[in-house]
Amino acid sequence: MRTVDINSDLGESFGNWRMGNDEALIPEITTANVACGFHASDPVTMVQTVERCKQHGVAVGAHPGLPDLLGFGRRPMAISPDDAYAYVLYQAGALQGVLRSVGLTLHHIKPHGAMYSILRDDQELAPAAAEAIAQAMDEPVVYWPAPTDAALPNECRRRGIRVVGEIYPDLEYAPDGRLILQRAKHHTDVAEATAQVRRWLDTGRVATPDGTPVEIDAESICLHGDGPNAVEVTQAVKRTVEEAGFRVGPLDATTEVTA
Amino acid sequence: MRTVDINSDLGESFGNWRMGNDEALIPEITTANVACGFHASDPVTMVQTVERCKQHGVAVGAHPGLPDLLGFGRRPMAISPDDAYAYVLYQAGALQGVLRSVGLTLHHIKPHGAMYSILRDDQELAPAAAEAIAQAMDEPVVYWPAPTDAALPNECRRRGIRVVGEIYPDLEYAPDGRLILQRAKHHTDVAEATAQVRRWLDTGRVATPDGTPVEIDAESICLHGDGPNAVEVTQAVKRTVEEAGFRVGPLDATTEVTA
Amino acid sequence: MRTVDINSDLGESFGNWRMGNDEALIPEITTANVACGFHASDPVTMVQTVERCKQHGVAVGAHPGLPDLLGFGRRPMAISPDDAYAYVLYQAGALQGVLRSVGLTLHHIKPHGAMYSILRDDQELAPAAAEAIAQAMDEPVVYWPAPTDAALPNECRRRGIRVVGEIYPDLEYAPDGRLILQRAKHHTDVAEATAQVRRWLDTGRVATPDGTPVEIDAESICLHGDGPNAVEVTQAVKRTVEEAGFRVGPLDATTEVTA
Amino acid sequence: MRTVDINSDLGESFGNWRMGNDEALIPEITTANVACGFHASDPVTMVQTVERCKQHGVAVGAHPGLPDLLGFGRRPMAISPDDAYAYVLYQAGALQGVLRSVGLTLHHIKPHGAMYSILRDDQELAPAAAEAIAQAMDEPVVYWPAPTDAALPNECRRRGIRVVGEIYPDLEYAPDGRLILQRAKHHTDVAEATAQVRRWLDTGRVATPDGTPVEIDAESICLHGDGPNAVEVTQAVKRTVEEAGFRVGPLDATTEVTA
Repeated sequence: MRTVDINSDLGESFGNWRMGNDEALIPEITTANVACGFHASDPVTMVQTVERCKQHGVAVGAHPGLPDLLGFGRRPMAISPDDAYAYVLYQAGALQGVLRSVGLTLHHIKPHGAMYSILRDDQELAPAAAEAIAQAMDEPVVYWPAPTDAALPNECRRRGIRVVGEIYPDLEYAPDGRLILQRAKHHTDVAEATAQVRRWLDTGRVATPDGTPVEIDAESICLHGDGPNAVEVTQAVKRTVEEAGFRVGPLDATTEVTA
Repeated sequence: MRTVDINSDLGESFGNWRMGNDEALIPEITTANVACGFHASDPVTMVQTVERCKQHGVAVGAHPGLPDLLGFGRRPMAISPDDAYAYVLYQAGALQGVLRSVGLTLHHIKPHGAMYSILRDDQELAPAAAEAIAQAMDEPVVYWPAPTDAALPNECRRRGIRVVGEIYPDLEYAPDGRLILQRAKHHTDVAEATAQVRRWLDTGRVATPDGTPVEIDAESICLHGDGPNAVEVTQAVKRTVEEAGFRVGPLDATTEVTA
Repeated sequence: MRTVDINSDLGESFGNWRMGNDEALIPEITTANVACGFHASDPVTMVQTVERCKQHGVAVGAHPGLPDLLGFGRRPMAISPDDAYAYVLYQAGALQGVLRSVGLTLHHIKPHGAMYSILRDDQELAPAAAEAIAQAMDEPVVYWPAPTDAALPNECRRRGIRVVGEIYPDLEYAPDGRLILQRAKHHTDVAEATAQVRRWLDTGRVATPDGTPVEIDAESICLHGDGPNAVEVTQAVKRTVEEAGFRVGPLDATTEVTA
Repeated sequence: MRTVDINSDLGESFGNWRMGNDEALIPEITTANVACGFHASDPVTMVQTVERCKQHGVAVGAHPGLPDLLGFGRRPMAISPDDAYAYVLYQAGALQGVLRSVGLTLHHIKPHGAMYSILRDDQELAPAAAEAIAQAMDEPVVYWPAPTDAALPNECRRRGIRVVGEIYPDLEYAPDGRLILQRAKHHTDVAEATAQVRRWLDTGRVATPDGTPVEIDAESICLHGDGPNAVEVTQAVKRTVEEAGFRVGPLDATTEVTA
């Protein structure tokens, strides 16, 4: 039986300010992308998040972002390759330090927000970040929204880093297979989200708004944790995966979904 | 022949702002305490500092501080034990992440500024920080200004963490053996500094301003890198150590100075 | 008919993180204490908050805090008198800048969290902060929880600054008249809160937990905006004030409640 | 006799980190652009800078930047018009608050670094920032490097804001009259700098590297304060202005240089 991973971005509270519903969400997922203090989170939040993940057998990856708490790491900034390299090393290391304390090791790295968007396109920054990812882990893995034909994942593959494609149940895809990003925390239509997942599990494809089928080369399903019905959506997607005959579980070196 | 370590606080620049003279100082020392981004430093500065240390065979420890760039981590803050625990894990981890990229591992941890002064006295914070130090390294080592009979080092010893005492050539000692701290970057009298070191190497003691001899149980000499003649002082101290018949070198598990 | 002011701490969101329920609360109050970016808030949040206050005829004061977003300004820090002076000027000025854009002027200054607690007790910091308040406004006013016999309000009176005492309906008072602070956002018992307000309006006193009556020399009622039933409590308190025969309205130079 | 203003960017230290040589430079200039805490400076530095300016009769303008201390405000960020509006109001207001304490009022606003470069080109941000400048001062003035045919100055003129062009003695001009920016703190050739100033005073023009004369429509000479010989250059430029028959002094409403 093939295994499908369900991941979510977590640990995005900051000091006194809460975000998301990590307590309810962590038991439902298999892999977490934990913010590292640059765009969200802080050391205490990271410790709490990682302890909760450990408790529920959730694998933990780093979700490094741009140094912009005020903009939640969503505003592209003209950083240099040296910045990109150092920001990834620093944030991945900080999370590793927290993971040590609960006996876990870093599972993967997934760039956040505008760090993601600049590394998707910038041919000078991508090699620097890929080099940092290669240094940051013994067996480096990067998570990336399908399609993974983009600057950073290409540089990662060149360095032997495993690239795990993600599918987003609550977002639409353009005819070229690209995600249509939405920034506002939106209420997700559960029926549409599960239909998109089921179609992908059955055929390897999703439909664009106009009905065109596009292939999504993914191994993990990414669910947003900050929407108002995030927990409900996650539970429904999980059931859909199981009903389609797959096992829900974290990725490991020997697991490859070829839906 | 016994070995004496010479350490210094480094990597205290921040973005465009320079501090200290790391380039000139690193070749003269054997161990560095590198700021981790809370009171000073930033990811790019940490990468540059660690690469330079690697090049000169200098061992690298973490110099974690309070989250107060504006106050350079020198203003005591009422943090909680959870804060202390998480701040140490996060900062030590971030530096480890940077050290991985040059093939080094974390050598020790030495609290900075007000993080040091609150951990010296606070019986609630010290166990939390000691626990974090125990988690942060496989063979944890903490550096601490002699006398090491203080809250944090006592908690560290209770957990089997090695405590390395430090002597400060450019500061005076009170009759109870405590350091008389000076905050301003001061010009150091080279003759006085080397005389204090020589006396300590020969007798295990230094003299207080009124002449009382006090014992200093130390294994490492700490030199401030931000004074105007820091490099000159370091070179003179190094010569003094060698002239007294000791070898200047980093500490390792088998090295213990009992001057 | 005498007038009673109802104030609340507002504008405590930060970037993407929401706090409180300002939209619902602002129409119910007469005076707002707006965070200025050090412990909470940010320029965009300040503009939105001030525009909303203007729309509802709510007077706006500054709520300056310590530079500690991570700790929400609730962790006492060892700042210097120069720091205290400059932090008040800077934050009051920043809010003034925002108020200019909607045609309002600064109504008062009320220190937040640990800025409040250190200025209550510290005899060196209080004159510096009082001096800054004197400089920051043409007709300076400071809000302060009764009893106002504390370091900062005393220094303010010495400089001719008007001190407005506050009563807290949702907190208990110790026999010495001091507030018993509670940090957690708590659900407030509406009946107890309104009873405390009514007793104070009728007699000028409240009861301590053991029944001792203590005098509260106040002109304004402060309601916490971050509790789960903050809006309900505020509405109930407002009704209570009106039922007791007072008018609810902002303070002005000629208004003095001597309940 | 016509008057020429000499301005410089000042107050760019941050906490314990020093930048520039304000003490020596302030007596030599007539107008200062003071950093406001987003890209550099902090409340204490602002108080000290403003007090020193007051003492030497130097007019003080705000030098608002992007919220990026780590990048010294030199990394373009994708901020929104609401951000641009609020960041200018906040920073100008904060400096006004500090200026009140020494009895000065804000003289002008001059965007810093990447705030300058995005406002030069971005047609959506420029109106928002211009609107903020219009709100921030009673008689708003903006300083801008000549040529002032750029997005922000054009939006400013549309709102009746006075635009003061600047000439840079230590930078070269392209044939289209645009500045060729250099980021590194460079040693300035005093002879070249004074020659450029003299040529401009005599003819209203400077020469590009290939000798083409370009017109520079300026009323103020901007000198960088962070170069190694900044004071020497400033003194030499000042002498050059006087030798050319002009008076060195701050701009006021009635002063217009038409060199």
